[in-house]
Amino acid sequence: MGNSRLGANQYGKAENRVVRIYRDTARHEIVDLNVSTTLRGDFAAAHVDGDQRDVLPTDSQKNTAFAYAKAHGVRSPEDYALALGHHLLEAVPKAEAAKIRVEQYPWDRITVNGRGHDHAFVRRGDSVRTTEAVVTRSDEVVMSGVQDLVLLKSSGSEFRGFLKDRYTTLQETDDRILATSLAAHWRYESTDVAWNDAYDAIVAAVLETFADTYSRALQETLYRMGDAALGARPEVCEISFSAPNKHHFLVDLEPFGLRNDGEVFIAADRPYGLIEATVVRDSAGGE
Amino acid sequence: MGNSRLGANQYGKAENRVVRIYRDTARHEIVDLNVSTTLRGDFAAAHVDGDQRDVLPTDSQKNTAFAYAKAHGVRSPEDYALALGHHLLEAVPKAEAAKIRVEQYPWDRITVNGRGHDHAFVRRGDSVRTTEAVVTRSDEVVMSGVQDLVLLKSSGSEFRGFLKDRYTTLQETDDRILATSLAAHWRYESTDVAWNDAYDAIVAAVLETFADTYSRALQETLYRMGDAALGARPEVCEISFSAPNKHHFLVDLEPFGLRNDGEVFIAADRPYGLIEATVVRDSAGGE
Amino acid sequence: MGNSRLGANQYGKAENRVVRIYRDTARHEIVDLNVSTTLRGDFAAAHVDGDQRDVLPTDSQKNTAFAYAKAHGVRSPEDYALALGHHLLEAVPKAEAAKIRVEQYPWDRITVNGRGHDHAFVRRGDSVRTTEAVVTRSDEVVMSGVQDLVLLKSSGSEFRGFLKDRYTTLQETDDRILATSLAAHWRYESTDVAWNDAYDAIVAAVLETFADTYSRALQETLYRMGDAALGARPEVCEISFSAPNKHHFLVDLEPFGLRNDGEVFIAADRPYGLIEATVVRDSAGGE
Amino acid sequence: MGNSRLGANQYGKAENRVVRIYRDTARHEIVDLNVSTTLRGDFAAAHVDGDQRDVLPTDSQKNTAFAYAKAHGVRSPEDYALALGHHLLEAVPKAEAAKIRVEQYPWDRITVNGRGHDHAFVRRGDSVRTTEAVVTRSDEVVMSGVQDLVLLKSSGSEFRGFLKDRYTTLQETDDRILATSLAAHWRYESTDVAWNDAYDAIVAAVLETFADTYSRALQETLYRMGDAALGARPEVCEISFSAPNKHHFLVDLEPFGLRNDGEVFIAADRPYGLIEATVVRDSAGGE
Repeated sequence: MGNSRLGANQYGKAENRVVRIYRDTARHEIVDLNVSTTLRGDFAAAHVDGDQRDVLPTDSQKNTAFAYAKAHGVRSPEDYALALGHHLLEAVPKAEAAKIRVEQYPWDRITVNGRGHDHAFVRRGDSVRTTEAVVTRSDEVVMSGVQDLVLLKSSGSEFRGFLKDRYTTLQETDDRILATSLAAHWRYESTDVAWNDAYDAIVAAVLETFADTYSRALQETLYRMGDAALGARPEVCEISFSAPNKHHFLVDLEPFGLRNDGEVFIAADRPYGLIEATVVRDSAGGE
Repeated sequence: MGNSRLGANQYGKAENRVVRIYRDTARHEIVDLNVSTTLRGDFAAAHVDGDQRDVLPTDSQKNTAFAYAKAHGVRSPEDYALALGHHLLEAVPKAEAAKIRVEQYPWDRITVNGRGHDHAFVRRGDSVRTTEAVVTRSDEVVMSGVQDLVLLKSSGSEFRGFLKDRYTTLQETDDRILATSLAAHWRYESTDVAWNDAYDAIVAAVLETFADTYSRALQETLYRMGDAALGARPEVCEISFSAPNKHHFLVDLEPFGLRNDGEVFIAADRPYGLIEATVVRDSAGGE
Repeated sequence: MGNSRLGANQYGKAENRVVRIYRDTARHEIVDLNVSTTLRGDFAAAHVDGDQRDVLPTDSQKNTAFAYAKAHGVRSPEDYALALGHHLLEAVPKAEAAKIRVEQYPWDRITVNGRGHDHAFVRRGDSVRTTEAVVTRSDEVVMSGVQDLVLLKSSGSEFRGFLKDRYTTLQETDDRILATSLAAHWRYESTDVAWNDAYDAIVAAVLETFADTYSRALQETLYRMGDAALGARPEVCEISFSAPNKHHFLVDLEPFGLRNDGEVFIAADRPYGLIEATVVRDSAGGE
Repeated sequence: MGNSRLGANQYGKAENRVVRIYRDTARHEIVDLNVSTTLRGDFAAAHVDGDQRDVLPTDSQKNTAFAYAKAHGVRSPEDYALALGHHLLEAVPKAEAAKIRVEQYPWDRITVNGRGHDHAFVRRGDSVRTTEAVVTRSDEVVMSGVQDLVLLKSSGSEFRGFLKDRYTTLQETDDRILATSLAAHWRYESTDVAWNDAYDAIVAAVLETFADTYSRALQETLYRMGDAALGARPEVCEISFSAPNKHHFLVDLEPFGLRNDGEVFIAADRPYGLIEATVVRDSAGGE
C-alpha cells in the first residue's frame, strides 16, 4: 500500500425507523421517523490498520437513536437531530462532525363522528418532512426540507421563446400542464427557531406561490417559490429546489375524430426534465 | 409440437397513465388514472400459428383508453371502465371477456387564502382507489377497492391466547401497536350504483371500524371492517382484505436505564404477517 | 353482525429472508431465500370471536422457517418448502392447507486467479428462482418458476397482419426489437423430481427457444417456449408465462439528417403490452 | 423580490433510455444506456425574468442523446459522454459546464448449443457500469464507476476491539458474514484512457481484493479495495466507495434445541451501517 492514502470518509447507521408514541394522556400523538447518523473525523486507523478502538459501532448509534426518542423526546425532528448529534460527538472523541438526517412521515387522525380519533391514525402520503443537522466541535447547522410533494397546475403555464438548435423539434406552447415532484431544502441562519412553525410557513409559501404564479418555465416558478419562502421566514438564508419536470403530453386524438383542447394527457415516466436552483437571501437588502 | 396445447391466455395493455382535465369552467377538475386492459377469448391462432388476424394490437387498446377519456369521459373509474370494456368486446370479435383495471390517484386543491385553488393541485398520497370491471357477452361485474391505506392504532390492540408449539417464542401482549397497509376490494351485486358515493361510504366505514374496534387480532379487525362495509352499502355482496401486519416492535431500553411503556418502537420491514380474509353478505339474514 | 359471514381466508408470515451457509468444508455454499408461509383452514373463531386458540402466530412460523433451514436443510427450494409445509400442517390442527412460497437469489463465486473463491460470492442478478408448494392432509403440489428474466432479441421478430379498428394507428413491422421481463411457472405432475436438474433444463429450454425461434408475435414465442419446456422434462404437466412486452421504439432521426435502420431505440417504461399464456401437456399424445 | 437572488442552478434531461444496436454484421452488439444531461451556466434570465432565450429545451437535449448514439456511436460510455458533453456546450452559449451521466446495463448472449447467440441476449443483473463526464470551456473530467455490485463473504470477517459507550450492546465477533451492495466511482487523471479495459481491470481488482482480504472491519476492506484499484490502473487518481453494511444476523436456534455455528442468518433490510471512504493516490510515491 505504498501508493495510496485515505481521503474523505464517514460512517454511521442509516434508516433507523424510530416510531415515538406520546401517550401521557388518552389523546396519543405519533411521531414517525427515519433516522440516519453519520460521523466524520480521524478514523484512519480503522481503514489502514484495521484498528477499531476509535470506532463507535453503528449498532451503538442505532441504540442511541432509539434511546434519545425517549430520553430527549421528539418535539421536532430538528430539535431531536441536534440533541442526537451533540451526544454522538461527545461519545466519539475522534469524531469531528456528526450529521443527523431525519425524515418524518406525517399522519392524520382517523375521523370518527366528525372528530379526530384519540389513538387511531391514517398515514398522509402527500409529502415527507426532512432535516439534516450537522454538529461540529464549534458549530451547528440545520437544513430542513420537504420532499415527494407532487404538484400540478392545469393552466397558467407556458414554454416559449427558447433557444433552438439543429436538434430542436419541440413546439412552443402557451398552455400546458406543469407538474413536479418537488424536493426542497433550506438552511437556517441559526438554531434558535420555532421549527414546526417555520416548516409550516415555508411549505405554505411554496404551495401558494406554485398555485398563484403564472409560469413561463419551471425555472421561473422555482425562483418565485424560493423568494416567497425567504420572505415568509427571516431565519432562512437560502433554499434549494430539485424539481423533475413530470411531463404530461397532450394526446393526439385527431386520428379518432376528437378534439383535445388540453383535456387528455399521458403522464410520462422517463425521461424527465430536471431543474435545480438555489435562491439566496440578498443581504444587501432590497436594492 | 405434438406434445402440448394452449391453455388459458389473455393479453392487453398495462398501465396507461391517463390524465383527464375537466376545464369547462375556470374551476378545473383532475382525474388521474392508471388503466390496464385485458382481453380473453379464442386467440389460439396467434399463439400456435403466429396468425395475428384476430388480435387487436395492445397499441390500439392504448389509443382507445385515451380516446375514451374524452369521448365517454370519466365520471367515475367504474363508469369509465365499463364503457371501455364494452367497446373493446365489440371491437374484437374473438374476445369473450374484457377486463379493465383502473387505479385512481387522488388530488387535493392547493389552499390559497383559505380556499381551494381553481387549477392548482397537490397529490394526496394516502391511498389509491381501484376498480376492475369484467365485461362478457352476457354479463358485467365490477369489483372496486382501495389500496395503500396505511393505518395504525397506538392502543386498543392485544394478541393473547394463541396456539403455541415448540417453535413459539412470542410473548403474549395486551397492548401493542397495530398497523397495516390495507388493500380491500369489494364486489357489487349490480352495476346500478352511485359509484363515488359508494366508495366514500365504504372507505369511511372501514376507517371508523378500524379506529373504534378493540382488536384481539388483525383477523378480528378485518372481519369487523368487512361487516361494517357490508352494512354501509347494500349494493356490496362481499369484501376482501389483504393486510400486512406491519410490525412495530417495542425497543428494549432497559440496558440504558430507561423505561419504555409503549413509547418507542422500531418499525420493521420484513418479515411481516400477512392476513387475508373475505367477508360475505349472509343472504339468509341474521340467523 | 347479523348480515355477514366469513368467506375465504388465510394467514402467514411473508418474506422471511433466510440465508443458509453450508460450511462443512472450506468450500462454502450459499443458499439465499425469501420464504413466505400461508395457512388456510377453519380459523373462523379468530375472525368472528377474536379467539386465537387455533392460531399459530406468524412469529412461530417465522421461527420454523429459520429452524428448518438447519434441521432439514435446503437441498433445493422445493424440497425445503415441502418439508416446511408438512411440518406446519402438523403443528396447526385447524389448518387444511399450507402454502410455502420460496424465492431463491442466485450467487456466483468471485473469480480469483481464474478460480471460484471458497467463501466469497457476488450476487448474480439475472433472474430469481421460485417455488410454491401446497401441502394438504391428502396431497402435495409443487409449482416452480423463474422470474425477472430479462430477454431481448434484436432481430428475428415481426408484428404484421393484425386486426385493425378505428383506433388503430400502429404500423406493421417486419423487423423489431422483442424484449420482455419473463416470469414463468410450471406445475410438476408429482414430487418425485430431481428439482435442481429440472429447473436448469427448463430454463435452458426457454432461453434457447426464445433465441432460436422467429417470432411473429410475443404470443407465438411464449407458446413455443412452453412447448419446449414440456418437451424438456416429462415431469412438467403445464407451464404459464407472464410476459410484459417491453417496448423499444425506433427513434425518428430523420429530422437530424440521420438514417436509423434499427440501430437506435428508446426503451419505454409504461404502458407495456402484457401477454399471458399457459401451455398444457396434451395427454392424448401427439394427435 | 427585493430580498433574494439566484444561487447555484442547473438543468437538463434525466434518464434517457438509449438502446443502441450494432448490426453491421450478423453478430449484433447491444449497448443499453440510461443517459442524463445537465447544463450549468448563466441562466439567470430564465429564473428571474422568465426569459427562455438562452435555454436549450431539455427535449432538445433528449434528441441529441439519441442522435449521438448514431452519429457518434457508443464505443464506451465514457467516449459517448464526452462527445455529448462537448456538443451541448457548443450548442448552448451561456452554458459553462455540461455534465453527462451514463449508466450502462450489461447483457450476455443467450447460450445455444454451447455458443453465444448472434442476436438474442439476457440481461446480466449483477451490476451497473456508470460514468460521469464534466466538460467545461477549458477542461474535461471523467469519473467512472460501478454500482449495485452485491458482495458477500461467509468467512474471513471479524469485528472486535471497537469503542464502547453506555449505549453499546453489540457483542464482539471473530466470524461473521460481511455483505454489501457496493457503489464505487473513480476519477481518471486524463481522458486518454482505454475505457473498457480500465473498467474491467478495476472491477476485477475490487472483486479479488474483497475475496482475498481478511476483514477486520468494512472500513479496512474498502481501503484495501481502493489501494488495489489504484495499483491496477495508473490512470486512476482516486476512488470512492459507498458501502451499506448489509447485516446478516445469526439466528438464535437454541430455544429449538439446534446449534447454529454460522449456518443460518436473517438478512436484514433496515437499518444498515453505511460506510463511505475515498482512497487517493499518494503522489509522493511509496514512502
